[in-house]
Amino acid sequence: MNFGRVVGTIVSTSKDPNLEGLKLLVVQHVNMDMKDTNTFTVAADGVGAGIGEYVLVVTGSSARLGTNLKNRPIDAGILAIVDAVEVEGDIIYRKEEEAAAR
Amino acid sequence: MNFGRVVGTIVSTSKDPNLEGLKLLVVQHVNMDMKDTNTFTVAADGVGAGIGEYVLVVTGSSARLGTNLKNRPIDAGILAIVDAVEVEGDIIYRKEEEAAAR
Amino acid sequence: MNFGRVVGTIVSTSKDPNLEGLKLLVVQHVNMDMKDTNTFTVAADGVGAGIGEYVLVVTGSSARLGTNLKNRPIDAGILAIVDAVEVEGDIIYRKEEEAAAR
Amino acid sequence: MNFGRVVGTIVSTSKDPNLEGLKLLVVQHVNMDMKDTNTFTVAADGVGAGIGEYVLVVTGSSARLGTNLKNRPIDAGILAIVDAVEVEGDIIYRKEEEAAAR
Amino acid sequence: MNFGRVVGTIVSTSKDPNLEGLKLLVVQHVNMDMKDTNTFTVAADGVGAGIGEYVLVVTGSSARLGTNLKNRPIDAGILAIVDAVEVEGDIIYRKEEEAAAR
Repeated sequence: MNFGRVVGTIVSTSKDPNLEGLKLLVVQHVNMDMKDTNTFTVAADGVGAGIGEYVLVVTGSSARLGTNLKNRPIDAGILAIVDAVEVEGDIIYRKEEEAAAR
Repeated sequence: MNFGRVVGTIVSTSKDPNLEGLKLLVVQHVNMDMKDTNTFTVAADGVGAGIGEYVLVVTGSSARLGTNLKNRPIDAGILAIVDAVEVEGDIIYRKEEEAAAR
Repeated sequence: MNFGRVVGTIVSTSKDPNLEGLKLLVVQHVNMDMKDTNTFTVAADGVGAGIGEYVLVVTGSSARLGTNLKNRPIDAGILAIVDAVEVEGDIIYRKEEEAAAR
Repeated sequence: MNFGRVVGTIVSTSKDPNLEGLKLLVVQHVNMDMKDTNTFTVAADGVGAGIGEYVLVVTGSSARLGTNLKNRPIDAGILAIVDAVEVEGDIIYRKEEEAAAR
Repeated sequence: MNFGRVVGTIVSTSKDPNLEGLKLLVVQHVNMDMKDTNTFTVAADGVGAGIGEYVLVVTGSSARLGTNLKNRPIDAGILAIVDAVEVEGDIIYRKEEEAAAR
């Protein structure tokens, strides 16, 4: 899985019927310091993620195993909202602190 | 999913019978500012996309779940035409404005 | 799908029995100007492609859906020979012209 | 498969029910000299791996075939802890030596 | 498929039961001149490949279709030993010559 920050939304009226009702979000990839990289992906939201939240994106056929994404024609799904990331003993991200710092 | 701009078409007469009747489009990948990157993909059209339109491309086995692409031997399918993209509160793309600007 | 130019062949006698009888071709990837890039892939031929021809390569599980590649243990299959590519209104490749220019 | 070093953990409370009970680990990719690269992945732990251990990560649908990861909506799973790596006749990594050197 | 040179082995005692008995090899990717690149993969051996041999690596779910790799939780399998590669009319690799040159 990779993770990133939800930064945007995509609106589409002409689409496959099987995509109806899905929220499509733009997710900016981040590096291990939680800094933005210059790549992004579009993922279907499976957990009610909001703009600014750090999320876990599952890719490939496994995205279709998400409880709210069953059998959808998608190759990327947001299946978790990240609360905290700890690397080498340091907490490099915690959701509440992030919110408080804004 | 990734998204890009439809820029071209591919013609092929010698091909797998299971590709018959599919429209194969060249899709230029774009970055988050909707500017062209130097990569592209060839995707089967599942929603009647036209040259110049920004589209959502689904890759891997999920492309075969598109309503009009069922069980086709493809690894990329266009399953939505993008109307608008909003990132960090800014509308970075809207289909009508794009058309008007040309 | 990606496309490229068939540039070579691979010979193998010690191989999985399920690969027997397949022609394995080296395909040089090309960019949108049909110029060689420095990457390549090895793909199983599903349409009788020859050296020098531009072809469409299908990757992943979909390669196994090719009519002549059913259930083979492959992750890339040549499923079409490209006759012409048109990008932004320009014909950037046409098979006959290519042949005549040689 | 690729391999890397387990460097961190991810905590998530809002997640897909099918991810419940899984340990999600941050794995830093390493090159063939076992030096860190600047890429990483998030993988579900299938073998009880701990921080600092070098592990084998299986990606794609195969990750869901791990004994402890059956049918989970994941695209990467840790399915082995690496004890030793030998390249070109040299032992470039051995778990016990690594531990002793600390 | 991609191809490369077998350069090493991986030893693991703590692993998924479904990986038991598989030989895990380190494969250095090569470019079209058969020169080493700086990337590599770990693949399960399905054809009895040895150190120094050039092999064909099948990735993704297709790796699990190898005769000796059926249903194993792997994403890369060695399914052929390369005897010769011919590109643009030149034989750029032949196994016997390679052996003799050593």
